[in-house]
Amino acid sequence: MKATVERATLLKCLGHVQSVVERRNTIPILSNVLIEVENGGLKLMATDLDLQVVDSIAAQVETAGATTVSAHTLFDIVRKLPEGSQVEIAVSGDKMSIAAGRARFNLATLPRDDFPMIAESDLPTKFQLPAETLKQIIDKTRFAISTEETRYYLNGIFMHVVEGKLYAVATDGHRLARVALDAPAGSDGMPDIIVPRKCVAEVRKLLDEVTGEIEVSLSSTKIRFRAGTAVLTSKLIDGTFPDYSRVIPTKNDRLLKVDTKSLAEGVDRVAAIATEKTRAVKMSIDRDRIVLSVTSPETGTAAEEVPADYASESLDVGFNARYLLDILSEIETDEIEIHLADAAAPTLIREGQSSPALYVLMPMRV
Amino acid sequence: MKATVERATLLKCLGHVQSVVERRNTIPILSNVLIEVENGGLKLMATDLDLQVVDSIAAQVETAGATTVSAHTLFDIVRKLPEGSQVEIAVSGDKMSIAAGRARFNLATLPRDDFPMIAESDLPTKFQLPAETLKQIIDKTRFAISTEETRYYLNGIFMHVVEGKLYAVATDGHRLARVALDAPAGSDGMPDIIVPRKCVAEVRKLLDEVTGEIEVSLSSTKIRFRAGTAVLTSKLIDGTFPDYSRVIPTKNDRLLKVDTKSLAEGVDRVAAIATEKTRAVKMSIDRDRIVLSVTSPETGTAAEEVPADYASESLDVGFNARYLLDILSEIETDEIEIHLADAAAPTLIREGQSSPALYVLMPMRV
Repeated sequence: MKATVERATLLKCLGHVQSVVERRNTIPILSNVLIEVENGGLKLMATDLDLQVVDSIAAQVETAGATTVSAHTLFDIVRKLPEGSQVEIAVSGDKMSIAAGRARFNLATLPRDDFPMIAESDLPTKFQLPAETLKQIIDKTRFAISTEETRYYLNGIFMHVVEGKLYAVATDGHRLARVALDAPAGSDGMPDIIVPRKCVAEVRKLLDEVTGEIEVSLSSTKIRFRAGTAVLTSKLIDGTFPDYSRVIPTKNDRLLKVDTKSLAEGVDRVAAIATEKTRAVKMSIDRDRIVLSVTSPETGTAAEEVPADYASESLDVGFNARYLLDILSEIETDEIEIHLADAAAPTLIREGQSSPALYVLMPMRV
Repeated sequence: MKATVERATLLKCLGHVQSVVERRNTIPILSNVLIEVENGGLKLMATDLDLQVVDSIAAQVETAGATTVSAHTLFDIVRKLPEGSQVEIAVSGDKMSIAAGRARFNLATLPRDDFPMIAESDLPTKFQLPAETLKQIIDKTRFAISTEETRYYLNGIFMHVVEGKLYAVATDGHRLARVALDAPAGSDGMPDIIVPRKCVAEVRKLLDEVTGEIEVSLSSTKIRFRAGTAVLTSKLIDGTFPDYSRVIPTKNDRLLKVDTKSLAEGVDRVAAIATEKTRAVKMSIDRDRIVLSVTSPETGTAAEEVPADYASESLDVGFNARYLLDILSEIETDEIEIHLADAAAPTLIREGQSSPALYVLMPMRV
């Protein structure tokens, strides 16, 4: 195996795959990246057994071949090579050599055949999503993914198609985020799936560098994203997502409209008083105004008035300040709608009736 | 107590004092900042019992008075207040109120009289140093300060005056950094002092915002820095700094001259192979060239040739890559001088004969 490749190209490609590799691995080869040199190019692959990323780049190939070396060491080396340099990689015996400029490296390798691959299987559902749309789906839901490992079926984004709509949903039991869009061609009849958190994070990273259409293909156990030259394949979470539809309130008849930025800044400010124990911000809603307040036995009290548009009965309701800010930071309109029932019932937050995203937040007792 | 002050001014002033306050304190009042309102201004003070910072700002004073409130909470609140707002602070009972725009806060206070002060005492030695000079003294020595708590007398920068020169020295036993400058007027006869690491760090932060002369005054137990409106007073380390002068080699007769940037980049690259266990980079020095190399049993090997100016016998010598890079990053000239004796003897590194800073580095066995 012998090939020459431009440093910047190699670095970008390694960047795509190496972040899948965990810092600590009990199985040594999982620390490695698989390098395959074939005619015309170089293929890099990394995996953690659940998630696998492959990326390809053009290279000047002298001899084909394949090997595996430490992903983080290789990434670190290539990062430090002089800008604009040509990198020559070659294998002899059980070592891989890297040469660029005046620098020479010899890395320990592990056999290519020991590198674990996620078994290829049929992925019958295939559709395309614009990169921008996939980015939005992820950004507007991922913050609500549960981190409780015992509730493993909540550790990802649930995706399913119902009556011509594709829904992406995440919840941790305290809040729920849902994005709806017209189901793309080909998604019809797709199985309900739960895309794990790490896969979501890796896909999101790739989307920062890609425009155009992302190819998605999936079965009931696996999903694959093709973004530019990178292909990410992940196992899906084997579990049943709870029936979330009954959590989304439909009869909340007290409508509060408020300037998004004023509310977010106000909540952030009064939350400066909050401690680990007291994270609730109280919203005292009156005709056309909200008084936000936080009371902490240790630190003191904080209050701020925010003008609003509200015509129903007065109401005091409390929310986790962090959760409320998470939602507000994903709102793109100047004004939001908050649909309330009472101080204990799930509250609906959205940009407006036609917005693709909606959020449900459980109140806290204040 | 009642006063009004511009948010940006208050924030900057709080920034100067709050970083002294430790995140966790067993004595509650050490979490607080002392606020004194006097005619024409506001004085803020924070302390950790060893180090105290005071800063003053102009304010519109209505009633004089003093109190103490949580430094980090106050800082967080002021940071989040709207830009350009006027902040009104007032005390009533055991609460301090803060008002700005539509926001109101009430913070728990602790009595002003309980706030610990570092006892005022005579500081007979007084001199001035340009901010830029003090910055250089700190930057070129602090990285060598020992973090071993058992060797507490190495946990700071040693400063002393000998024959018209002021020396600042730090060492951890593996490396030593010394800056020499003409002793400023007033420093004559000053006691030998060791300025603790935390004091060094806080002074350095202040220097980012200050130009002009810094007033330094000290005794054998305390030091005070006056930088702009801020005054920092610190206890000194009560210990004896070792006689470092015998560590600085004077008879190293093998002179190596090398381009600073090429050496630094080369060392950084070959060190990509290094692991926790193998941090030594080997320099194989031959006529007019150095071969840098690292060998790690786990990862592999790395080598890079760097052109150099060297006319003595060939020599192999090893250095801790991190320590060498720390020194190289403080070198301001294009070329450095490395004065070697043999593979086991202290090595002298400096910009040139007349440069104020010199570094001594102990080799590692390779």
